[in-house]
Amino acid sequence: MNLVEELGERKIIDLIMECLDQMPNTPVPFGDDVSAIDIGNGKLAVIKTDMLVGKTDVPAAMNLWQAARKAVVMNVSDLAAKGVQPIALLASIGIPKGLSKKDIQQIGKGLNNGAREYNAYVLGGDTNEASDLIISCAALGICQKRDLIKRSGAKPKDYVAVTGFFGKTASGLKILLENLLVPPDIKEELVNAVFMPRARLKEGLALAQTQAATASIDSSDGLAWSIHEISRASKVGFVIDNLPIASEMEKFTQIHGLDPVELSLYGGEEYELLVTVKPKFWQDAKEAVENVGGSLIKIGLATKEKGLFLKRMGKTVPIEARGWEHFKTGLNQRA
Amino acid sequence: MNLVEELGERKIIDLIMECLDQMPNTPVPFGDDVSAIDIGNGKLAVIKTDMLVGKTDVPAAMNLWQAARKAVVMNVSDLAAKGVQPIALLASIGIPKGLSKKDIQQIGKGLNNGAREYNAYVLGGDTNEASDLIISCAALGICQKRDLIKRSGAKPKDYVAVTGFFGKTASGLKILLENLLVPPDIKEELVNAVFMPRARLKEGLALAQTQAATASIDSSDGLAWSIHEISRASKVGFVIDNLPIASEMEKFTQIHGLDPVELSLYGGEEYELLVTVKPKFWQDAKEAVENVGGSLIKIGLATKEKGLFLKRMGKTVPIEARGWEHFKTGLNQRA
Repeated sequence: MNLVEELGERKIIDLIMECLDQMPNTPVPFGDDVSAIDIGNGKLAVIKTDMLVGKTDVPAAMNLWQAARKAVVMNVSDLAAKGVQPIALLASIGIPKGLSKKDIQQIGKGLNNGAREYNAYVLGGDTNEASDLIISCAALGICQKRDLIKRSGAKPKDYVAVTGFFGKTASGLKILLENLLVPPDIKEELVNAVFMPRARLKEGLALAQTQAATASIDSSDGLAWSIHEISRASKVGFVIDNLPIASEMEKFTQIHGLDPVELSLYGGEEYELLVTVKPKFWQDAKEAVENVGGSLIKIGLATKEKGLFLKRMGKTVPIEARGWEHFKTGLNQRA
Repeated sequence: MNLVEELGERKIIDLIMECLDQMPNTPVPFGDDVSAIDIGNGKLAVIKTDMLVGKTDVPAAMNLWQAARKAVVMNVSDLAAKGVQPIALLASIGIPKGLSKKDIQQIGKGLNNGAREYNAYVLGGDTNEASDLIISCAALGICQKRDLIKRSGAKPKDYVAVTGFFGKTASGLKILLENLLVPPDIKEELVNAVFMPRARLKEGLALAQTQAATASIDSSDGLAWSIHEISRASKVGFVIDNLPIASEMEKFTQIHGLDPVELSLYGGEEYELLVTVKPKFWQDAKEAVENVGGSLIKIGLATKEKGLFLKRMGKTVPIEARGWEHFKTGLNQRA
């Protein structure tokens, strides 16, 4: 257990965290979706950085415009989960030799379109020569301190809910990487989840306004892992009794004899929000999200007991703490 | 002229910039050392991202602690040039397979030590699998809007000054890459400039307080290029009559028959500040920098005429607009 490929991403993050001095009175704990500093007057400056790497995050069929847009969406999604509007984006780009002028323009347009889609602007960045395509974005937003939804506020009996159905991206990736046959309408929906991920920004902003959400996380490491993270940060357990299985994904699994529970729980690379909500404010939260054109689907309950369980078809099974993890589940390992 | 290796970094940046919508009323123009947003009460949130790539920015003899520290220093230096204290740093890390647990700890410690050296903290980040070592940092600081020193404020007759002597890093790199023999005391100084670059943060903060500086830039792309950038942004020319040649570098060039003017003007990868100062406040600026233990060396004058010239030993020669440029002057091209 000494090389990074044996350690895996989570252990690597722990090793780095152990080397870091903690900032006193930091408003958001290390390991939440974003970092923040107090800027006075009840406000926070919120920042996030997330890196897209060609060989693990960009399937061959994805174009550079889509890749650059995805690099933006990955960062916007983390601010969305905290209820924070991104204002500015920066992009540090590593460019492999052999890319053309048109390729660079595709990257520039993808960055700009991604940012403008969420009412943000790309303000600057940095370009470098690298062996892989690397697009490392940083997002900055300002919010009221009281509006930021951490991972740590869930209480027993809170409802747990999501902003959409799961398993589409994992299915889309399988279709692309294993060249699987599926009916065109289903294929389009599933493959689009890979090519055109969407951050649930308007949903996150609406939820922050209600003050109804007690905890929130984006689900980019998968539904199970996200539940696990809220559980760990909030010191609660969860019982999920309404697994949010995407219908297109279910049809896909029926055709290919795959397990829809596996794909929706452990697939990852999805950008839905997973939130906990005080039961008495459930209706407020649901309406707030629906008013901006989204949906909030109740999938279970937070519990005092620490375990994570899935109730489905009369059976109760543990939800494992696993999901998308670099060095373990990158495209190169999947392919 | 269609592939990135023919275009070069500056043209690539231009291509990307052309794709970006401009944020209205942005307090710092695109292409300055940092980006910023107005957060009210006369304050700005200032951000910067800069990426270190193993194969172009880390010579073989540099260890991972030094590389990670350098990735921090690169970002701190840009805030320093604007007179802004960095508060928070994020690090997106791309890790090649084969690195060990100890290597990761070296990276973590280098990031932390780099941040703490400048009174900042590493608040978060992201780890990924990549073919090269990649450390993309983002730095965040808050400043008074009136204190931020842009590239664009230089006026004819302003003094132009630097915080230290030039040519050490370029010499150190040459020694390392070409395995050149030099006396130990000179070698240590020159090689240290490569391994342990220092951001001129206290100098930049002191200058911002004086309000004496009219423009400022960090010199990481080289002295000539930095003069060129201030010239372009401020629409002034420059006559440099006191080239700040580092004495250790001059000795090194004498031994190896190299040109000290070439190395100090066009070497690059240095982290001195280049500033312009109103003549009547020159003494204030110089004393402010000396009071924090630094030095401010007057090297010439801004001129109404647009050209850039070096006066040296009775001759006047043009200063070319060239310097460190990825895809053109990376380590792999130098080696």
